[in-house]
Amino acid sequence: MTKQERAARTRRALILSAAEVFDQEGFAPASLTMISSRAGVSNGALHFHFANKNAVAEAVQGEALSVLRQIAHAWPEGTTPSLQSLVDTSHTLAQRLQDDVVLRAGFGLSGDTTWKERADLRRHWVDWVSSGLTVVALDGALADDVATGDALAVIAATTLGFEAMGRTDPQWSTREMFTRLWRLLLPRISADNGTGPVAPEGTSAPGGVVPGPRWWPERQDAPH
Amino acid sequence: MTKQERAARTRRALILSAAEVFDQEGFAPASLTMISSRAGVSNGALHFHFANKNAVAEAVQGEALSVLRQIAHAWPEGTTPSLQSLVDTSHTLAQRLQDDVVLRAGFGLSGDTTWKERADLRRHWVDWVSSGLTVVALDGALADDVATGDALAVIAATTLGFEAMGRTDPQWSTREMFTRLWRLLLPRISADNGTGPVAPEGTSAPGGVVPGPRWWPERQDAPH
Repeated sequence: MTKQERAARTRRALILSAAEVFDQEGFAPASLTMISSRAGVSNGALHFHFANKNAVAEAVQGEALSVLRQIAHAWPEGTTPSLQSLVDTSHTLAQRLQDDVVLRAGFGLSGDTTWKERADLRRHWVDWVSSGLTVVALDGALADDVATGDALAVIAATTLGFEAMGRTDPQWSTREMFTRLWRLLLPRISADNGTGPVAPEGTSAPGGVVPGPRWWPERQDAPH
Repeated sequence: MTKQERAARTRRALILSAAEVFDQEGFAPASLTMISSRAGVSNGALHFHFANKNAVAEAVQGEALSVLRQIAHAWPEGTTPSLQSLVDTSHTLAQRLQDDVVLRAGFGLSGDTTWKERADLRRHWVDWVSSGLTVVALDGALADDVATGDALAVIAATTLGFEAMGRTDPQWSTREMFTRLWRLLLPRISADNGTGPVAPEGTSAPGGVVPGPRWWPERQDAPH
């Protein structure tokens, strides 16, 4: 392993342990010593990668945003009807929130009043649901008497409400709760455009939706 | 003004200023000095009323719970149909979240990972929506093909999602957003039981729903 590979590995270990600390303790009480000792590296090694706690939190948010972009990426071009894609993606988000502490910490930092310089994962998710609903409407799959803004408000607030409440009570951020959302909403919002019924429980295997590593190396583009 | 009245007034001023500090900064970074100086009293006066920051936060949560109980109290016995009462109460919650920093701080503490000893206002609200939906179902006002648990999950998560997102972006916790929720949901969940249509925007004047003081003196019963 080259020196560069070792440095990259240490950096990833630090981001993971920082995510665990932020997720459990919040931003304000987290200390650099908690983060470095959990990663099994010295304080000096941490300072080689990050100038201060803000820089660590920014790196966690950057990784979390990459994961979210991977989940809620460009609209899929396959044969899945658009409304089903929206349902499936929400289930993938639910699954990843359970599995991926970096994603969870990123959402936590987005809503943490003690972390002021946040990139907003929640806003990114709202924007994605908004563009998804636009595609659904263009496909003729949104009922005529439903205002897109109303559907957006309810879908965004419910999914982010599940996430926020799941922090203190994990039963809220389960696949079952997301299924409840769609079982209630689909008969109200969907129009028959000939692509068949939409399954509220999703059409993808739980946890098997997004291939690839649990979280990706940082991208070059700036956080949203 | 007697000595007792002065002491009660100081205690209320401290709770109000603590709520403002917790609401803006979160629990962890708040200091007793920030709280006492904002209330215009000495640190000694603060310590006469509260042993430490935990005790202050508990008092804020106790007051916030009183406000929430006042909003989401025993089911009204008036002539308002039960589903309309549920809609109206959610609008009252939205209005009070905007007006009342003690209520807002109480919800904030409920979701704050840095405040571990929380009484859970969010759970209290979920329990109230749950009992409200039971009344609605008994009144025959809930559509036959709607599972009460599905409606509960969506109404609870949407309203609490509005609250959580309103912390960083106030447009989410407005009356307009709550109206969007009901405009989308009512056609799906309501059954015609002869009491007439339900107004998604509520039937009470904004802000004028709950009479009485902005927040009540502490009750004798323990927090939920």
